[in-house]
Amino acid sequence: MVCRREYIARIIGHRTAQHELQAATVFAPSNIALCKYWGKRSIELNLPVTDSLSISLQDYGALTTLEVSDTEDALQLNDHNVIKNNIFYNQVFDFLNLFRNKEAPFFKINTKLNIPASAGLASSACGFAALTLALNRLFHWQLSAQELSLIARLGSGSACRSLWHGFVHWHRGVLEDGLDSYATVLPYHYPQMRVGLIVCDTSPKKYSSRQAMIQTVRYSRLYKTWPLCVEEDLKLMFESLEEGNLTALFALAERNCKAMHATLMDLPDSISYSTIETYQIIQHIRSLRDQGLPVYYTQDAGPNIKLLFEADYEDVLKKEFKEMIIVKPFV
Amino acid sequence: MVCRREYIARIIGHRTAQHELQAATVFAPSNIALCKYWGKRSIELNLPVTDSLSISLQDYGALTTLEVSDTEDALQLNDHNVIKNNIFYNQVFDFLNLFRNKEAPFFKINTKLNIPASAGLASSACGFAALTLALNRLFHWQLSAQELSLIARLGSGSACRSLWHGFVHWHRGVLEDGLDSYATVLPYHYPQMRVGLIVCDTSPKKYSSRQAMIQTVRYSRLYKTWPLCVEEDLKLMFESLEEGNLTALFALAERNCKAMHATLMDLPDSISYSTIETYQIIQHIRSLRDQGLPVYYTQDAGPNIKLLFEADYEDVLKKEFKEMIIVKPFV
Repeated sequence: MVCRREYIARIIGHRTAQHELQAATVFAPSNIALCKYWGKRSIELNLPVTDSLSISLQDYGALTTLEVSDTEDALQLNDHNVIKNNIFYNQVFDFLNLFRNKEAPFFKINTKLNIPASAGLASSACGFAALTLALNRLFHWQLSAQELSLIARLGSGSACRSLWHGFVHWHRGVLEDGLDSYATVLPYHYPQMRVGLIVCDTSPKKYSSRQAMIQTVRYSRLYKTWPLCVEEDLKLMFESLEEGNLTALFALAERNCKAMHATLMDLPDSISYSTIETYQIIQHIRSLRDQGLPVYYTQDAGPNIKLLFEADYEDVLKKEFKEMIIVKPFV
Repeated sequence: MVCRREYIARIIGHRTAQHELQAATVFAPSNIALCKYWGKRSIELNLPVTDSLSISLQDYGALTTLEVSDTEDALQLNDHNVIKNNIFYNQVFDFLNLFRNKEAPFFKINTKLNIPASAGLASSACGFAALTLALNRLFHWQLSAQELSLIARLGSGSACRSLWHGFVHWHRGVLEDGLDSYATVLPYHYPQMRVGLIVCDTSPKKYSSRQAMIQTVRYSRLYKTWPLCVEEDLKLMFESLEEGNLTALFALAERNCKAMHATLMDLPDSISYSTIETYQIIQHIRSLRDQGLPVYYTQDAGPNIKLLFEADYEDVLKKEFKEMIIVKPFV
């Protein structure tokens, strides 16, 4: 098996390890999976069991400054210091450890998120994508977006989809070395698409998605059908994108999300990411749909709900969900 | 394929069609599946995809008087007339149509349920079991419990388990004619076992379990793993019964129920039988368990929750769930 260090060496190749800048500031958007990344075939290399498909959240994401330091590591999140050995701190430096060298022995990171951290709003996706873009700028690697996607994946799987705006397809790949498991952007542009973020709870998750995935792959009997679900859903999602049928796409996304959460119910000690408020919002969506409103949702490893709908329904849905943040992925 | 009429003829054989009594009154207990019956391999004969395992609810069930009439059919439920062509009315007479003859051209039924009807509390299980016992009495068939189980199954699958008290095992059978798909009682007697019924909602179900099963078998991708789930769960449930480890049995029952409800989430138009109150009760159970109380639950095709626990915890749980009806299956 290829280790992470060897994997990075294969991507960066003979590029210089010298940093050309002292600091770089970059932005990467968050992304929401319409067809979920759920389960790894390699934990070491963050290789997924299946393909996935996401929509990026335009201006919502991480603005990150990465600075080389001669003296010490430091991590700031939204202008607060993150203490050493915090889980988030360790994740960031496990990743950055792969890029330290004599010229750049330590790193200082300042990340500003305009979405809540650790609440299933893909903060690690945009966070690691931004770090990757910042490394590329700092070391003047001049890597392609596809190569950067390969690197971002090591930080957090879904980060490999946060290098673009719009619809992004992460190819699972088949190679053991992981070099064919990267994302590509899709050529669809639907300005009428809206994503509505409803934040139920910003407290850190009880179960990290990393841990939940490992448990699910290992113990959920229902997970055995997950690859089949994704294959079916993705095929139909691509057809919907080709036809411009966003309602069909949203319905498929909701079904895919429910299948993912269903696999979690079958753990010996089942996991639910929903709070009572989550269930109330889901019931509200269902009842609006029963009244003829084409509004759908998706949910990740957290209690928050992301509504999927078209611009025509923005005004009426604003009244139904007063706290909703409306994202226009293509405007 | 064997039709229902031919199936009944094979069981009843050459027994007289003459009724010896004008009326018969019998009781059958309701039963709660610990390993669920979920999905049919034959709709005509109510043959299940898998085995299942239940606990009968002692005094909770149906007290039914079946009377032969020369003039008309009639159905009373809890002393109220059920109007003709109501779904429940049709189910009852679809079943009784198999037993009409010149001597018994019409039937009058009076059923008293001491559990809410149509709310996932197995009212059809005890109802059809009681009808079957009443037919046996009325026509003096003198059939064995096993043969009666075969007949009750045609009314409602789970009714085949309501002919006994205690733990009951329904064998799926493999024959096309369905004559090996009946229940048997298990030799375990655990007086400390308790079932707590928490009724959230007694209104009729939005989705009948008959319809939901058909949809699930046909469209749920996750359902493909259901036979595997049951095989694993049943094996471990029998081990727990053998060891007298009720806590292990209850934990397995909860897992099995969650897997069943998970298969419903993957329908193109997903089905949830839970109300907000259901979710609140489930969270309450989870939090009590996190505090060390060995209390588990199961849920059927309705919003109501059935707690599973041992006598030692009866007092403390009565305080937590004030509306709970406590059933002692072996006392």
